[in-house]
Amino acid sequence: MSGPGPSVVALGGGHGLAAALDAWQPLAGELTAVVTVADDGGSSGRIRREMPVLPPGDLRMALAALAGDGARTQEMATLLQHRLGGTGVLAGHPVGNLVLTGLTEVHGGDTVRALDTLCELLGARGRVLPMADVPLDLVAIVDTVDPDDPQRSRHIRGQVAIATSPDRVRSIRVTPADPPVHPDVLAAIARADVVSLGPGSWYTSVLPHLLVPRLRAALAATPAHVVVVLNLEPQAGETDGFSPQEHLRVLVEHLQGVPLHTVVADAGAVVDRRGLLSAVRACGAELVLAPVAARDGAARHEPELLRAALAQVAARVSGAGRP
Amino acid sequence: MSGPGPSVVALGGGHGLAAALDAWQPLAGELTAVVTVADDGGSSGRIRREMPVLPPGDLRMALAALAGDGARTQEMATLLQHRLGGTGVLAGHPVGNLVLTGLTEVHGGDTVRALDTLCELLGARGRVLPMADVPLDLVAIVDTVDPDDPQRSRHIRGQVAIATSPDRVRSIRVTPADPPVHPDVLAAIARADVVSLGPGSWYTSVLPHLLVPRLRAALAATPAHVVVVLNLEPQAGETDGFSPQEHLRVLVEHLQGVPLHTVVADAGAVVDRRGLLSAVRACGAELVLAPVAARDGAARHEPELLRAALAQVAARVSGAGRP
Repeated sequence: MSGPGPSVVALGGGHGLAAALDAWQPLAGELTAVVTVADDGGSSGRIRREMPVLPPGDLRMALAALAGDGARTQEMATLLQHRLGGTGVLAGHPVGNLVLTGLTEVHGGDTVRALDTLCELLGARGRVLPMADVPLDLVAIVDTVDPDDPQRSRHIRGQVAIATSPDRVRSIRVTPADPPVHPDVLAAIARADVVSLGPGSWYTSVLPHLLVPRLRAALAATPAHVVVVLNLEPQAGETDGFSPQEHLRVLVEHLQGVPLHTVVADAGAVVDRRGLLSAVRACGAELVLAPVAARDGAARHEPELLRAALAQVAARVSGAGRP
Repeated sequence: MSGPGPSVVALGGGHGLAAALDAWQPLAGELTAVVTVADDGGSSGRIRREMPVLPPGDLRMALAALAGDGARTQEMATLLQHRLGGTGVLAGHPVGNLVLTGLTEVHGGDTVRALDTLCELLGARGRVLPMADVPLDLVAIVDTVDPDDPQRSRHIRGQVAIATSPDRVRSIRVTPADPPVHPDVLAAIARADVVSLGPGSWYTSVLPHLLVPRLRAALAATPAHVVVVLNLEPQAGETDGFSPQEHLRVLVEHLQGVPLHTVVADAGAVVDRRGLLSAVRACGAELVLAPVAARDGAARHEPELLRAALAQVAARVSGAGRP
């Protein structure tokens, strides 16, 4: 899997991670996705409540994003992403969530082995690993927005509850507080040339990686170049009214020893360029301001444009071209 | 897929068809399974009630039986056969039933395309096709066994109801009465050197093929050598007290123009050898009496032994070695 490009570890979840993986693919000599396992909504939530497995949804999306270009591997990716139809209890489950869950059961609970098999099946141009070896729950302390609420802050538990609550997240943690992390995750981070974080749901897909102590320790110790891709716009319920600068501020609060070298932001999304630049410099990092948003105006990154921005990062990484 | 052996079409369903496919594999130059789609029990029944698809269970079992020997293809077969665990609504669904259903949806309802993709994925040594292009229901007329029941016969609808009713099946039909049959099924039967029927649940997996008019017409017209593998013992609720001879009698009643050339029966299961021999001869067929039962005494065919018996059939087929 190693080629001439840098060894890249991309952290995140959901559509944001899929966009990052899509962008990194042709640039990276080795690419590893380290995926959040804190989702408790939708199909993943239904599966978590029935079976003692990692929530499969974000893992499935990362697998599909890495699938090879061939007709057969693309058909497999389409199958894994396809949501069952009908009018019953199966409706809405992506086939890949059920396949990953079943294959994990076949291998006695070994999710990583199941993921490796599916990567092979998909001709994946990279590897997909879970952020932790056990399912996680997010717990947020939020500031209440209802002026009549006698409580000024509350604990909210679970990704869905946090993402849909109108209250503003003040801080977030995971439970269990110190979950086990697969040694291959730690090894990939240790040998990485680039670690990439974001874009994605800030509190529920991006920051959780920094809340897992063993993962944060590995990130603090890696010689890799750490790049953060900021979101294009605030997300309702999570980061209402957040500017790119505020996204960065919240992230920096959670770094706790993890270095930050480059911040990628969309040129069109930044109103206060000078403010963002000084915030980035205050972290000792460099700002890459580039047009990376989708050309159709949707709030998602355009893979080609994000790739061009990340190529600037890859080009500066001294480790690129390591044997 | 064509090799030096004869072109074989194996009709049936469930474990019986899987045993026949296992036995035929090394003997056949080309092997096509034509699988019942009349199941309404278990996972298949649950899926049928939720979605307008063919019941996937018997198709999945045939796919798994044809999987190649490699470690990866065997892992895929194990995955397709694996039943989801847990304590919820997913529990008990074989992953392959959900995969086949999802892939059929991906291909706009084209089950045959989905089956061909899965055959490729499994490195299958043959092809799996459905007996009809729409889900079927079985309807049986049964003789009531309860002496206090004022009705002497009843209609019973559905494979599960028929198989679990204590009443004795007098006759059986499918609904819809004249379902569409995929042209590849008709073409495979037309070019076959051997057509093989059974073993399996007699009324619900073996006879239904003879109840579909377009399939029966193709079987009546094929130049193929037709071989029937009789069951080892009666099946509760379906064929209580049936001797091999009675299995044959019921089959012959449904042949209606379909030729019968060879009958394979287990030497140990036949009590009245002379009676069976004369019944076979009365059909103009030949009897192969051989030890084909499992050596451990279980009521299933031993693939190697069944293969040895079927090899006798294959050796006599003039079409063997056709280019």
